Amino acid sequence: MTSVPPSPSFNNINWHLVQFCPDSALEPAVAKCFVVPLKREDMPPVKKGILERLNTGEVVIGDGGFVFALEKRGYVKAGPWTPEASVTHPEAVRQLHREFLRSGSNVMQTFTFYASDDKLENRGNDLRLSGQQINEAACDLAREVANEGDALVAGGVSQTPSYLSCKSEAEVKATFKKQLDVFIRKNVDFLIAEYFEHVEEAEWAVHVLKSTGKPVAATLCIGPEGDLNSVSPGDCAVRLVKAGAQIVGVNCHFDPMTCVKTVKLMKEGVERAGLKAHFMVQPLAYHTPDCNRQGFIDLPEFPFALEPRILTRWDMQQYARAAYNAGIRYIGGCCGFEPYHIRAVAEELATERGFLPAASEKHGTWGSGLDMHTKPWVRARSRREYWEQLQPASGRPTCPSMSRPEGWGVTKGHADLIQHREATSEQEIQHLLEMQKKAKASA
Amino acid sequence: MTSVPPSPSFNNINWHLVQFCPDSALEPAVAKCFVVPLKREDMPPVKKGILERLNTGEVVIGDGGFVFALEKRGYVKAGPWTPEASVTHPEAVRQLHREFLRSGSNVMQTFTFYASDDKLENRGNDLRLSGQQINEAACDLAREVANEGDALVAGGVSQTPSYLSCKSEAEVKATFKKQLDVFIRKNVDFLIAEYFEHVEEAEWAVHVLKSTGKPVAATLCIGPEGDLNSVSPGDCAVRLVKAGAQIVGVNCHFDPMTCVKTVKLMKEGVERAGLKAHFMVQPLAYHTPDCNRQGFIDLPEFPFALEPRILTRWDMQQYARAAYNAGIRYIGGCCGFEPYHIRAVAEELATERGFLPAASEKHGTWGSGLDMHTKPWVRARSRREYWEQLQPASGRPTCPSMSRPEGWGVTKGHADLIQHREATSEQEIQHLLEMQKKAKASA
Amino acid sequence: MTSVPPSPSFNNINWHLVQFCPDSALEPAVAKCFVVPLKREDMPPVKKGILERLNTGEVVIGDGGFVFALEKRGYVKAGPWTPEASVTHPEAVRQLHREFLRSGSNVMQTFTFYASDDKLENRGNDLRLSGQQINEAACDLAREVANEGDALVAGGVSQTPSYLSCKSEAEVKATFKKQLDVFIRKNVDFLIAEYFEHVEEAEWAVHVLKSTGKPVAATLCIGPEGDLNSVSPGDCAVRLVKAGAQIVGVNCHFDPMTCVKTVKLMKEGVERAGLKAHFMVQPLAYHTPDCNRQGFIDLPEFPFALEPRILTRWDMQQYARAAYNAGIRYIGGCCGFEPYHIRAVAEELATERGFLPAASEKHGTWGSGLDMHTKPWVRARSRREYWEQLQPASGRPTCPSMSRPEGWGVTKGHADLIQHREATSEQEIQHLLEMQKKAKASA
Amino acid sequence: MTSVPPSPSFNNINWHLVQFCPDSALEPAVAKCFVVPLKREDMPPVKKGILERLNTGEVVIGDGGFVFALEKRGYVKAGPWTPEASVTHPEAVRQLHREFLRSGSNVMQTFTFYASDDKLENRGNDLRLSGQQINEAACDLAREVANEGDALVAGGVSQTPSYLSCKSEAEVKATFKKQLDVFIRKNVDFLIAEYFEHVEEAEWAVHVLKSTGKPVAATLCIGPEGDLNSVSPGDCAVRLVKAGAQIVGVNCHFDPMTCVKTVKLMKEGVERAGLKAHFMVQPLAYHTPDCNRQGFIDLPEFPFALEPRILTRWDMQQYARAAYNAGIRYIGGCCGFEPYHIRAVAEELATERGFLPAASEKHGTWGSGLDMHTKPWVRARSRREYWEQLQPASGRPTCPSMSRPEGWGVTKGHADLIQHREATSEQEIQHLLEMQKKAKASA
Repeated sequence: MTSVPPSPSFNNINWHLVQFCPDSALEPAVAKCFVVPLKREDMPPVKKGILERLNTGEVVIGDGGFVFALEKRGYVKAGPWTPEASVTHPEAVRQLHREFLRSGSNVMQTFTFYASDDKLENRGNDLRLSGQQINEAACDLAREVANEGDALVAGGVSQTPSYLSCKSEAEVKATFKKQLDVFIRKNVDFLIAEYFEHVEEAEWAVHVLKSTGKPVAATLCIGPEGDLNSVSPGDCAVRLVKAGAQIVGVNCHFDPMTCVKTVKLMKEGVERAGLKAHFMVQPLAYHTPDCNRQGFIDLPEFPFALEPRILTRWDMQQYARAAYNAGIRYIGGCCGFEPYHIRAVAEELATERGFLPAASEKHGTWGSGLDMHTKPWVRARSRREYWEQLQPASGRPTCPSMSRPEGWGVTKGHADLIQHREATSEQEIQHLLEMQKKAKASA
Repeated sequence: MTSVPPSPSFNNINWHLVQFCPDSALEPAVAKCFVVPLKREDMPPVKKGILERLNTGEVVIGDGGFVFALEKRGYVKAGPWTPEASVTHPEAVRQLHREFLRSGSNVMQTFTFYASDDKLENRGNDLRLSGQQINEAACDLAREVANEGDALVAGGVSQTPSYLSCKSEAEVKATFKKQLDVFIRKNVDFLIAEYFEHVEEAEWAVHVLKSTGKPVAATLCIGPEGDLNSVSPGDCAVRLVKAGAQIVGVNCHFDPMTCVKTVKLMKEGVERAGLKAHFMVQPLAYHTPDCNRQGFIDLPEFPFALEPRILTRWDMQQYARAAYNAGIRYIGGCCGFEPYHIRAVAEELATERGFLPAASEKHGTWGSGLDMHTKPWVRARSRREYWEQLQPASGRPTCPSMSRPEGWGVTKGHADLIQHREATSEQEIQHLLEMQKKAKASA
Repeated sequence: MTSVPPSPSFNNINWHLVQFCPDSALEPAVAKCFVVPLKREDMPPVKKGILERLNTGEVVIGDGGFVFALEKRGYVKAGPWTPEASVTHPEAVRQLHREFLRSGSNVMQTFTFYASDDKLENRGNDLRLSGQQINEAACDLAREVANEGDALVAGGVSQTPSYLSCKSEAEVKATFKKQLDVFIRKNVDFLIAEYFEHVEEAEWAVHVLKSTGKPVAATLCIGPEGDLNSVSPGDCAVRLVKAGAQIVGVNCHFDPMTCVKTVKLMKEGVERAGLKAHFMVQPLAYHTPDCNRQGFIDLPEFPFALEPRILTRWDMQQYARAAYNAGIRYIGGCCGFEPYHIRAVAEELATERGFLPAASEKHGTWGSGLDMHTKPWVRARSRREYWEQLQPASGRPTCPSMSRPEGWGVTKGHADLIQHREATSEQEIQHLLEMQKKAKASA
Repeated sequence: MTSVPPSPSFNNINWHLVQFCPDSALEPAVAKCFVVPLKREDMPPVKKGILERLNTGEVVIGDGGFVFALEKRGYVKAGPWTPEASVTHPEAVRQLHREFLRSGSNVMQTFTFYASDDKLENRGNDLRLSGQQINEAACDLAREVANEGDALVAGGVSQTPSYLSCKSEAEVKATFKKQLDVFIRKNVDFLIAEYFEHVEEAEWAVHVLKSTGKPVAATLCIGPEGDLNSVSPGDCAVRLVKAGAQIVGVNCHFDPMTCVKTVKLMKEGVERAGLKAHFMVQPLAYHTPDCNRQGFIDLPEFPFALEPRILTRWDMQQYARAAYNAGIRYIGGCCGFEPYHIRAVAEELATERGFLPAASEKHGTWGSGLDMHTKPWVRARSRREYWEQLQPASGRPTCPSMSRPEGWGVTKGHADLIQHREATSEQEIQHLLEMQKKAKASA
């Protein structure tokens, strides 16, 4: 380990720029840099737990979504969206974890989205890897990188095909239990039940997670209109808290401002009910003003043409501020978030947190690094006012600014939603195209 | 090494899906997959050189731009844009090389953009790393990953602050020579002079590169209007070929369709002059219909609000087809390209190349993997017609679809363009804001 | 009078194409055409009153707004918006009445918007014409044209500066009374209180109008959020019906679909209260998805840059159908409506009404007249599917599709809203520009 | 005649506000107002001819297009676009003439567009009115209104179906001759050959018009790419001048800025050829950045969904300035122009012309009349900076900002373009829909 002068001074602490080499024997040139307090007594002795942090009002920064980020890097298949890359390409998953850590994340969420056994073998997804293998590999990678900085490991479960196929409460809970067994064996720091469209299934998940004694967070993928059975955000939150979740909120499906609005409604509901909870938000990094209740899945651009909707880093700073002002303290991201989006959240909240993330060594706050650009008119953009006021063009004059969501009005239990192991047949596709045409005509 | 059945059959060859473990001793689970011919005699014995490939009409797929991709991952600073990450965070650079390789790239370009000594110490960029260190590390990483697949290593030089500051031809050439010495010592496969706004400086670069005996490619960052001195694309190309470049074209600054149009003009110029050359194109992954001669640097969104302009994978397929139809055979990308963009190029040209890239194991051609999605209306999107016809919305109703470029009309030799080691002062910034206001008022 | 064969057959009646010459002595060639039933017994003997029509479920088509249409023709000044043209340029007002009649309007509304004495002399508007002169001239012109077809005359009053300046109920009512005296003397067929932002003032107006024994309609310029004191549309409607209005609804301030939605809320309120009424709607001809409670006045484009928002005739047909389906039977327009917009309403409801308007002799339904165009690709557009599916471009790539409304949160009684006779001083303008800057910064 | 004090002082002349009553016997209340010099000696004795005006550098303001304006008012049928309203509804045509006069027009162009005999009877357009009747009525109306102010009468001919159907030069010229005979008998002040897509046919028209000894203007409906046979604007202009036209330029088909650019190219051509001419421009009032060579006919929005493209009055002021700066002195409009658009041209050039148009009594320059608005934030908009900087929203978030033009590549002589008397059959429409589908697929 070697320190590189000069040391920055920030927030009444002298910081120290450190390079460390995780694989130093093999690759002496590999170095990761971050800042730590210069004086021993300023250094946190052991990591604080998630509730310890939230109870003292600390900001906890989450990570971004892995399935979308790794899809773009070539390791996750859109459609099944299953996380086998932890086994097949661990270097890619590890690198993404590191980038989020370096960007300011305090949570390394295990890459176990849709890693329940029923989902892994759905619709012809012939993986030949067991759920257990995948969940274990994901835990190991999250822990490895969490150890490189001030981050906790969270084990995550998400909604199951079993629920949509009307399996019993016991069967659905057994599905969660299988993932949970790995998490406990691997000793994750806390648990997250995330991405639930029906609050009922999320309650079941919380029941199972709660049984372990670990802290439990629960997030639904809903907007201000509530879950797919029209349970309002406030009522959803109350039910989750009563089921045992200490942290509640939303993730995925809607853009940041819509998600903050939804969590506000949850907070009001919890307070009205005389209950107490912490709140969290992990939205999309896509603008979705045109979504209906079901969120971005229904947008015609999902999932392969969402590019024009991607938030800028400045949009992210606005989001972080809005979330903070709404009293939310666990602030992260979901699909579409890249490391620089998380860094923007961390930069916006640098004053509240007392430090900048490591990756800010490569980013001047509010674009100040542009004062080193060769072109003078680009140097003139090295300031907050410029970027705050800019309304960025799409470069797509033949495209609209909003779409009409699809959504066929089918819900839990509908034949087209039932899971099965066989691949989708040509006949089924023809049937779907018919339905698509009909839905379009009636729009 | 273990093979995984079933083996696909494609283009009259039986292919073989292979997993190999580069670091097998340490991490037995780490596996990278790609397809190779099933029969020994179908396997290429040794790698063909760049000219050998192009002379036989083979498609060569380039990689994407590193500075933008790594800026988003937290390893490059926008403003100076210098490539020290090869030394400080090699794991991040290596991972990006691997993703491009996996996506179909045949060229691992050394991450040496703006790695000339004069640029490294410009405007307060206090790196404490020598140009030699950076160039060497970049060569090692490119070679390491090139060895993992069918890719060549290309050493790259780009335009220099020295030229803009009116240094002599000898001084500018000496700057190129320093980078080149490393490339030769590290034995790269061929050389690229890229990102030149003035054909004159590119000619000087070609002279230097040519002296090594390695194949030389040269690309300008110009559009159909020509270089910053108004030399037409056709004339530029002729001058580069006469200077000794075997491959000529454009990179950066404009969107794919504009770049293809520009290379077409170059090709016409070369043919009119009775010369012969191969052609290459490495455009932006941003839509830039509103650019003027100087390209995307002048757009108000550069570099921190370009998100709404990012091309989809379907735009990329259209680009790859257009480039191929124009007779261009070296087809890659520059700023904004992510691995999935290169994969889209490789998928579009799979018939011509005879195989799909490794990363296509995680992507159904034309979105066919969506037939495994849980929602039926998303399954209905698993086909070419859907994505080809979609006009994606920006989700930004208060933003325009085109901007007015800035550009202050200053050129080579102007005081505001001269490089210096000192950081930009507050007084200079104030002067620039004045000029910005003036430019806006007269727009 | 001469008839021109052939006679069309429509809706179980044989129709007769008639030309009549209003000024036949002077200009024998001047002819106006419309269709009437071929058989005497199908011809309506005398005009039915407004309630008679609505009670039998007949569709009544209103006219369009006069101030905006005549502003574009050069006869009304934007800012004061007062209707002195009835006195100074009667030929222009008469012509516009005729165009609406010819387009299908059943109501010639007197051009008396903002023709109360207090408004006429507001803020330096030195007209030298009395309110009585203007109201009388307006009644004469409306009656003259109503006599040329199947239309009724409606006398209209609108909100007063007196109310905004906190004058007493008696004073405000006296202001309405002065206009009403003219209407009664000129024997209009019914009365309309329109364009009220506060339901309280509208109630006062209804009280005054009701005292005459004529049928009374009342429309507020509100949207789904209710009046400026947040009284909901349902409650507003109930109060207006209780005050004595037989017909209630909304006009101006919002686009057609928003207005239909608001009237639906009114209808639900009236039905919930166990009351009975007829419903009317006279919206803007501008798309206003970005409006807040105060409507289009707050949009930055008001009133001189609304062009890109103008509805097409096809948008109008959609509106007419939606209004009809919502149970609204008095369907007209307000600011932005041109004669062809009203014709589109009449064409959409031709089946329900049993005939096409006279002006449809110059318009093929759903664009069918294009089959006579010289260019074959334009002839291919002569059908419903083409126009229904078209998403028209703005031709303005540097403009957004939505704006952020201004609105400074000032309401009735605020110093800046008080009326006075003096022109706005330069000092006042400077004060306003300060406020504008502040409002923008906090947006 | 009665004068109304106070008299304004403007441009070193004391002006006099005059009301006069054209139909005073019938309607004593009908008054039209305009300003005239207060002193006798400042009053122009007789009207100056068109060349006399242009030779002294005076600005001549044209009128706007009649077919589109009267289509919206209900008197012209889109598709055939023929001008029979001069006979059937003279009051409507007269009123539009008056509005343009009042807005500042110096030319009352006879409403004789497409009034050649071959066009009047095309494709089932069964009018039962002779070309002679229509042309005579149009001349009378133009003269009547021209007499009410400082305007000249121009007789206009336009391109013929005969030419498109490959009739001989003699036949085409005979068609023009028939209209011309009426113009001479009615003694118009000068002649305009307008709306020609092929310069050859325009030359033929100029030959015929020139034979009368009247001044001749000629405008093509082309853009910078030249006529449909690719003759460049410069070459077109030279040919027209050589054929005898004293005034040349363009009208219709493209937006104002594109038309100004085209006339600039014409001017350069004429000057390069050592010739002399005056220049005129009468563009669309629609933004058409997305047009190809054939102009707005090819845009999918033509003719029934062009609304979002309509220019604001501020766009018009910019146009008038650009035209003036380009050395064009005859500045008017074509399809889409409403009276307020012409007023905006006249207001922009008020300093150059020395006076404001009559209609400006109802319009404060640069929106200054808004200082009389009741809402303070609208009063804050009463100034030039506000309107100049505004980028108006379309209110249409699901629509694009640009379209792709259709255009099937068929030209003069193609079977689908040949004129015939019979209406278009259902079979022909089916054939056209097939072609439309094919054109779309290959776009």
